[in-house]
Amino acid sequence: MTTFTCDPQLVADSHFVMSLPLSDVLLHKNAAFVWLMLVPRMDGMRDITDLPRDRQSALLDEINIATRVLKDLYTPFKMNVANLGNMVQQLHVHVIARYADDAAWPRPVWGSGIEAAYDDDMLSKRIAELRAAFAQEVTS
Amino acid sequence: MTTFTCDPQLVADSHFVMSLPLSDVLLHKNAAFVWLMLVPRMDGMRDITDLPRDRQSALLDEINIATRVLKDLYTPFKMNVANLGNMVQQLHVHVIARYADDAAWPRPVWGSGIEAAYDDDMLSKRIAELRAAFAQEVTS
Repeated sequence: MTTFTCDPQLVADSHFVMSLPLSDVLLHKNAAFVWLMLVPRMDGMRDITDLPRDRQSALLDEINIATRVLKDLYTPFKMNVANLGNMVQQLHVHVIARYADDAAWPRPVWGSGIEAAYDDDMLSKRIAELRAAFAQEVTS
Repeated sequence: MTTFTCDPQLVADSHFVMSLPLSDVLLHKNAAFVWLMLVPRMDGMRDITDLPRDRQSALLDEINIATRVLKDLYTPFKMNVANLGNMVQQLHVHVIARYADDAAWPRPVWGSGIEAAYDDDMLSKRIAELRAAFAQEVTS
């Protein structure tokens, strides 16, 4: 039985995609970017290095999975992978597909002021294709 | 014998601190932040996940070392650990000590426009204390 509670701001900013062995996969509500967040289900963690080393390795495995999913589905020019935690302290790792013609390029997405909303159809499609791709990665 | 060449922009933006088993440790010239970069000495890598899995694990070990060094020396409020690579494509991981009263907080440091220069004494002191702390981490 786990006592993990996802930070309310992370919940408010995202849609739930699925649970991996260590982390919950969230899709950021900002549709200007294909932007995932991995949230390890362990309370009290802020930095990646706060995790026990074996959980760090599990997180790295899940960063690999998330990266493969985004590369396979969306063919980004570059991945941005980051733990900042300046706004929300609970440990979360951003895994973002970037393009040389995206609205913030080459700046980071955080604080760019660039935002867009998913419409219902786009959101349903995106979550469905992400769930299918993650499920295939996890079982393969 | 290695054929690795560090990207000229990374060289221009930084001072060399030391070599760890996988990565070179660079100190960013921007003295507004305590800002390290880890550059794995392998040509042709862009994303962390481009590295073979055992080298990813070695990089994670070195992120742990760099984080401990910065926490021990400078007591940051939060670490920022990120691979972006939007400006310089060669794989490099930022390991940055952040403070709730630093000039860019809570925004990311990249693109913040906030810059400062080290004077010679500050730079010598910082590099010396970093080298001593890394050396102790690597041999301990």
